[in-house]
Amino acid sequence: MKGRTEIAELGEFGLIDRLTAKFEKRNKSTMCGVGDDAAVIEASKDKAIVVSTDSMLEGIDFDLTYFPPKHLGYKVVTKGISDVVAMNAVPEQITIALGISSKISVEFLDDFYAGVEFACKEAGVDLVGGDTSASVTGLVINITAVGRAKKSDIAYRSGAKEHDLICLTGDLGAAYMGLKLLERESYVLKGIDNPQPQFEGYEYLLEQYLKPRARYDIVESLRKEGIVPTSMIDITDGLSSEILQICKASKCGARIYLDHIPLPKQATMLAEEMNIDPVIAALNGGEDYELLFTVPLSLREKIINIGCIDIIGHITAESTGAYLVTPDGNDITLRAQGFTPKQ
Amino acid sequence: MKGRTEIAELGEFGLIDRLTAKFEKRNKSTMCGVGDDAAVIEASKDKAIVVSTDSMLEGIDFDLTYFPPKHLGYKVVTKGISDVVAMNAVPEQITIALGISSKISVEFLDDFYAGVEFACKEAGVDLVGGDTSASVTGLVINITAVGRAKKSDIAYRSGAKEHDLICLTGDLGAAYMGLKLLERESYVLKGIDNPQPQFEGYEYLLEQYLKPRARYDIVESLRKEGIVPTSMIDITDGLSSEILQICKASKCGARIYLDHIPLPKQATMLAEEMNIDPVIAALNGGEDYELLFTVPLSLREKIINIGCIDIIGHITAESTGAYLVTPDGNDITLRAQGFTPKQ
Repeated sequence: MKGRTEIAELGEFGLIDRLTAKFEKRNKSTMCGVGDDAAVIEASKDKAIVVSTDSMLEGIDFDLTYFPPKHLGYKVVTKGISDVVAMNAVPEQITIALGISSKISVEFLDDFYAGVEFACKEAGVDLVGGDTSASVTGLVINITAVGRAKKSDIAYRSGAKEHDLICLTGDLGAAYMGLKLLERESYVLKGIDNPQPQFEGYEYLLEQYLKPRARYDIVESLRKEGIVPTSMIDITDGLSSEILQICKASKCGARIYLDHIPLPKQATMLAEEMNIDPVIAALNGGEDYELLFTVPLSLREKIINIGCIDIIGHITAESTGAYLVTPDGNDITLRAQGFTPKQ
Repeated sequence: MKGRTEIAELGEFGLIDRLTAKFEKRNKSTMCGVGDDAAVIEASKDKAIVVSTDSMLEGIDFDLTYFPPKHLGYKVVTKGISDVVAMNAVPEQITIALGISSKISVEFLDDFYAGVEFACKEAGVDLVGGDTSASVTGLVINITAVGRAKKSDIAYRSGAKEHDLICLTGDLGAAYMGLKLLERESYVLKGIDNPQPQFEGYEYLLEQYLKPRARYDIVESLRKEGIVPTSMIDITDGLSSEILQICKASKCGARIYLDHIPLPKQATMLAEEMNIDPVIAALNGGEDYELLFTVPLSLREKIINIGCIDIIGHITAESTGAYLVTPDGNDITLRAQGFTPKQ
C-alpha cells in the first residue's frame, strides 16, 4: 500500500510543480501553459488568446455572514479578469460555474449576478457561459476569464532582466485590513439582534476587500505609452510572494525599498488599532488585485508620467536573492509567507 | 424585505434564463454566449475558439468511496472536452481548478493527475493551467476546455430544420446503470471488511460510468465526410432533455423511435435484475457523453457509412412537439425528467 503524504508537506507551489511535471505539450497553438497568471493560446499569426481559471469557495475565500452577494459577484469577476490583465491582455469574456447549496435563494443569485453584470459593464466584458449544479456543502464559484492581445504585447512572468525597475500600481494592504475589520465586527456582534458594526473611517478598506477593481486601466495606459513590461503579475498572495514568483520565473533577484511601498492611511490606522504591522499586511496580506511589473530602466520617465504607479525597487542578479531594504538600511529576506531578518 | 424563492421553483434551465437575461454583448469577438454547449469566440477571420466550463462536486457528481481517483481524473477531462466536441470543434487545451479538502493526500492527487494526463494523451489535449485552493468541505473540481474550429464548421444547437435526420453515436443508459450497480454494491457491502463487490458481466457499465470517452473521433469522421451537422449537443442529462434543448434552440419538434435507440445488452440485463426500465435509463439517465446531432435527409447514406451512428428519428415542425414513438405506434411526450403518455 502506498504511503500518505500531506499536501502541507509540499506547499501549494510544490504541489503544482509535482502534479504538472509529467504533462507534455501536444498542440502548436499552446504558447504558454501552467506557470503563469493565464495560459496563452495562439489565435492567429500575430494575436493570442489568454485563458485563466480561478475558484472561490465559501468558508475559505468568503464568509456569507458579511459578504453581500452583489459584492461577491463583482469580486469574482475582478479575480478572473485580473489574471488576464496580468498578462497585459484585454479581458473580453468570462464564464461562471456555480455549485449552489440549498440555503441559497433565487434572490441571492439575482443579487450575485447583478454584481457580476456591474463588473462586466465596467470592464467591457461579456458573460458567455456557465454551469450550475447542486452543492451539498457551501457555495462554490468558478470563474474562467478570456482575453486577447497581440503576441508581442504579452507580458509573462519570465522576462525580468537585471537593472529593470520594479513597478507597482495602487497601494497595498487595504483588502487584508478590510477583511480583519469585518472579522472583528462579526466576532464582536455575534448573536446580537440588529447589530451595528463600526466601520466609520475605514470605508476604503471595506471597498478594497469587498469590491476591488482589476487594473485593466493600466493595460490601456501602458499601451498608450507604447510600453510592454518585461514581466508582470497580479498581487493576490501578497507582494513578497509575487516578487518571488517573478524572480523564480525570470531567474533573477530583487531589491525593494520599504519606504517606497505605498501603504494607505486607513490601513496603517486600523493596523495600529489592532496591533498588526501594516507592512505585514502589504507584504503578505494578498487580494490587492494590483499589478506588479518590471520595465527597463530607460522607461523611468514614461512610467512616472502615467501616474498611480510607484517604482519600488529594481531587479538584481539571481545570485543576490530577493530583499526588502528598510529605511535604516537593513536587508530583510523576502519570503512567500512572512519575512525574517537576514543573517 | 425581499421574499425568498427556492431554486427548485424555477428549475435549472429557468434559473439560467432568469439570471442571464440582463447581460449585454459588448465585444464583437463574442460570437455565441450563454445557451449552447460552449461559448464561441472569434480567433481570426475564419477561425473560432470555443470555451466551456464545468464543475464536478463530491457528494453530487461523484462518491469517493467507489470512484478511483485515476478514473475521476479521466472522467473530468471527458466532461470538459465533450462540450467542445459538441460544437464540432477540436479540443486542444484544458485547465483544472481544484478545491482540496484535508482528507485528500498527495498520492490521491498523483493518481488523479495520472488519469487527467492519460485522457489528455488520448485526446491530444494540453493541460495549460489551473488553480488549487483549500476546501473546507469536499473535493471540488472545475474544468475549462478550449477548442478550435473553422467558423463554418461550428455546430450550434439552433440549426436543426424540419425533416432533418436525428443521429446518435454509441448507445445509451450504460453509465446510469453503472452508477446504480456501484451504489448497490456500496450499500450491500457497507461496514464489511475486505468487501468483494459483484461486478462480473457488467464491466461495460462500469467502464461507461467511471471512464467514458468523449466522442472527438466523431468530429474527425464528420470532417472527413465533409459533413457539418445542422445542430449538435452532447448527452449529459439524458436523451429526452438534450432533444428538448435542440427543439427549443432550433424552434422545432422531433419524433424519435424507441426501437431505434441502441440499448446495450448489459444495461438491459442489469435493469431487469434491478427492476428498472432500461428505456428510462436511456432517456433520462445521463452522463453518456455521446453526441446527438441532426443532418439534412440527403446525407443519410454518408451517415450510415461512417458506422457507429444510429438514425433514431427526424425533426418536425415546432407545432407538433417532441415525441417518442413506441413499437406499437403510441406517441409519448418527451420531458426533461421522466415522460408521460400523450393524452
